[in-house]
Amino acid sequence: MTSFAGLSAVYLNASLKKNSADSHTLLLMEKSASIMRAEGVEVEMIHMLDHQIGFGMVTDAVADNGAVADDWPGIQTKIMAADILVIGSPIWLGVKSSLATLAIERMYASSGEKNSKGQYLYYGKTAGCVVTGNEDGVKAVGMELLYAFQHIGYVVPPQADCGWIGEAGPGPSYGDPDPDTGKRFGYDNDFTNRNTTIMTWNLMHQAKILQDIGGFPDKGNVAANWESVTNAAQF
Amino acid sequence: MTSFAGLSAVYLNASLKKNSADSHTLLLMEKSASIMRAEGVEVEMIHMLDHQIGFGMVTDAVADNGAVADDWPGIQTKIMAADILVIGSPIWLGVKSSLATLAIERMYASSGEKNSKGQYLYYGKTAGCVVTGNEDGVKAVGMELLYAFQHIGYVVPPQADCGWIGEAGPGPSYGDPDPDTGKRFGYDNDFTNRNTTIMTWNLMHQAKILQDIGGFPDKGNVAANWESVTNAAQF
Amino acid sequence: MTSFAGLSAVYLNASLKKNSADSHTLLLMEKSASIMRAEGVEVEMIHMLDHQIGFGMVTDAVADNGAVADDWPGIQTKIMAADILVIGSPIWLGVKSSLATLAIERMYASSGEKNSKGQYLYYGKTAGCVVTGNEDGVKAVGMELLYAFQHIGYVVPPQADCGWIGEAGPGPSYGDPDPDTGKRFGYDNDFTNRNTTIMTWNLMHQAKILQDIGGFPDKGNVAANWESVTNAAQF
Amino acid sequence: MTSFAGLSAVYLNASLKKNSADSHTLLLMEKSASIMRAEGVEVEMIHMLDHQIGFGMVTDAVADNGAVADDWPGIQTKIMAADILVIGSPIWLGVKSSLATLAIERMYASSGEKNSKGQYLYYGKTAGCVVTGNEDGVKAVGMELLYAFQHIGYVVPPQADCGWIGEAGPGPSYGDPDPDTGKRFGYDNDFTNRNTTIMTWNLMHQAKILQDIGGFPDKGNVAANWESVTNAAQF
Repeated sequence: MTSFAGLSAVYLNASLKKNSADSHTLLLMEKSASIMRAEGVEVEMIHMLDHQIGFGMVTDAVADNGAVADDWPGIQTKIMAADILVIGSPIWLGVKSSLATLAIERMYASSGEKNSKGQYLYYGKTAGCVVTGNEDGVKAVGMELLYAFQHIGYVVPPQADCGWIGEAGPGPSYGDPDPDTGKRFGYDNDFTNRNTTIMTWNLMHQAKILQDIGGFPDKGNVAANWESVTNAAQF
Repeated sequence: MTSFAGLSAVYLNASLKKNSADSHTLLLMEKSASIMRAEGVEVEMIHMLDHQIGFGMVTDAVADNGAVADDWPGIQTKIMAADILVIGSPIWLGVKSSLATLAIERMYASSGEKNSKGQYLYYGKTAGCVVTGNEDGVKAVGMELLYAFQHIGYVVPPQADCGWIGEAGPGPSYGDPDPDTGKRFGYDNDFTNRNTTIMTWNLMHQAKILQDIGGFPDKGNVAANWESVTNAAQF
Repeated sequence: MTSFAGLSAVYLNASLKKNSADSHTLLLMEKSASIMRAEGVEVEMIHMLDHQIGFGMVTDAVADNGAVADDWPGIQTKIMAADILVIGSPIWLGVKSSLATLAIERMYASSGEKNSKGQYLYYGKTAGCVVTGNEDGVKAVGMELLYAFQHIGYVVPPQADCGWIGEAGPGPSYGDPDPDTGKRFGYDNDFTNRNTTIMTWNLMHQAKILQDIGGFPDKGNVAANWESVTNAAQF
Repeated sequence: MTSFAGLSAVYLNASLKKNSADSHTLLLMEKSASIMRAEGVEVEMIHMLDHQIGFGMVTDAVADNGAVADDWPGIQTKIMAADILVIGSPIWLGVKSSLATLAIERMYASSGEKNSKGQYLYYGKTAGCVVTGNEDGVKAVGMELLYAFQHIGYVVPPQADCGWIGEAGPGPSYGDPDPDTGKRFGYDNDFTNRNTTIMTWNLMHQAKILQDIGGFPDKGNVAANWESVTNAAQF
């Protein structure tokens, strides 16, 4: 039986709500995180708006882009120390939030650095996403986030996104109480619960696989010497 | 030293050109395929427009959606027999071709079936994409294709897409001869060559990893009994 | 009081269902079309799968891309004769259907031709879209379709898309009967009904405006002589 | 001969560069703006990072979402006073910048308000976008921005986006000097120059049309009474 003890995960919430207690996305992120915790994974939950994060394709926005403050370097350190990254994003106008976009930009700004094998920095890790909204856009947000993850080196395991939206139009958000039934909207949605469960297990499996084999193999993907591999010279 | 002999790959070309000899996308797909062949991977190249493929969210478009002819079932059999899938798509108006969309739809129509572990059909396999155009849209096409792959069960390894476009605007396509220099456009683009090499190696690595561990682990992702895993009941 | 008599619209259904009677998207398209008809607009409804349409960035897929048959030229003639175009698309895996993509490709293949003012062919017309699905993706489909419309010359009026999806996950499609209540799913969704109404009226308003002023003004947008307009030379 | 005097435009630069002098996107925005100025349009150029803008789906991020500072209300006032809005965005990882996303979110937060006709706030205005990058993504950024504009009430005229990217891969940005020729990259790109010219003229034409007819007609699109228009009751 596989044990996931020894793995760690960062859950990064890109909600636009200043107070994490108001975030509907957090409620679904917690469902995923609770599965990881029960399996022995060390989980850290970060609410982006608890921090001041600077803009710019830089690793230090104060020194390099004139920001007043920048807590990103500390967050980046935590992302780099974790085996798993899960970004949670609300949907606004069909796409991911400005904060989710900011997180990707700041991670991308470090992607030129190399890991100990000489691969791009995020090789050897795995990532997924949690998306909630009341209208539409779970898959559109997933497309952008998962694309970004694999582009900078993460492995995207099967069914690496999950989410909830209500029927077309404005309406209750995930976890809002239903005044008629007292239940919380979305909590009994089998599709959402199943996908959240599957994503969470697949992230743990993938992280364990990468841990067991010592990261992603490096032949052919080390930027410094890709030309030397078989057939590359013919290009 | 890792051997990739025993692995197989299907390269599916969603070019809109009837004759595969006219497909610019095929030229870049062949660069990737040639690396796989040199490593012992068995490669099959399929040109979609060599076939008549019916429309519909069905496994047999003749029987179930009134199509005149439907070669998809034969293609689907090949996709299921392969460890690796690479879809090649041109870009038109910034997005993937109608044929690439058709391929995804037909694959999705089978996704309710299960593999021998009871997982969705495409679990245990890995996929990537090759994109060419003369304007813009490599990443947009990659987002849609890679999202679809992971959604139906494929693992998306790091840097699973590659492509080429020219400077903004119409102009030469990938592999067109440059009348001034005699060289072929794009062939000496380091970025394209490097990404093609990296994608190809990562697909082989990922397929080998999955082969070595007997497919993707199944705890928590088997649709039939996901409710039984730790903590899922609390949902 | 404005009269819309004298205007015409083509509604093009990119459903994957062979029989139009099975198309859920058609049900919502008909709601829009019925408003236009009541205002005197001449409406033609085209079900793409009633036709054989060839692939390729060509105006005649038989002559120029080896297709067995190609009914597109007749459809293109109708699109060119209409003031308004509405494309209806289902959502599969979060994006528009292969047939909607095919329609855009075939329209784009004619976009190099010019209208009587020397503008791109579709100048002087207006377009919108109707999207239905049971999961998610109304806005993602709208983004792709509306972008394509404006890119080839259509005016996109305010709130030019409408659609319906259910709560996250598979479930009833638009117009399916609810076995409990006997009502049809989505029919009493205020958001969908309101957006469908607004889109329809805005398309009629926009078409009337363009008719009244004799098409879109041509200064600065005629490909043949854009360099001659003020300040363009400085580029 | 049409005069555009009396029209006004806001150009909002969502560059991630703190200093506007470092923004490549600004260089292309200025080409568009210079055409407007020459035609008598009053132009205001706003560099988002000259301001502190709070996050949140709120009109005042200090009062309503705990932000330290929020200059958005002043920017919103300028957007509301202008006939034309042009958002300029760089491309990072294939999509629009976090600041462009933030601008859309903050505009959307006001979209429930009504104009003097009772329409959504942005009715009667027109919008377009300018996009630059060195890799890929002009159309993907255009899709998101133009979709958002029409969704909240703007008219999107034909060919409402323009942009520049270089050949696939990292490389010079728009306006960077070419050390070999002394020319600036992209400045002599006919496609970019033509599209920038066409977009600019079309925005002026569209704004003038809307000014001449007193804004967008309101029958059928006033949220308060859409049910009363012909046939709407049947829904």
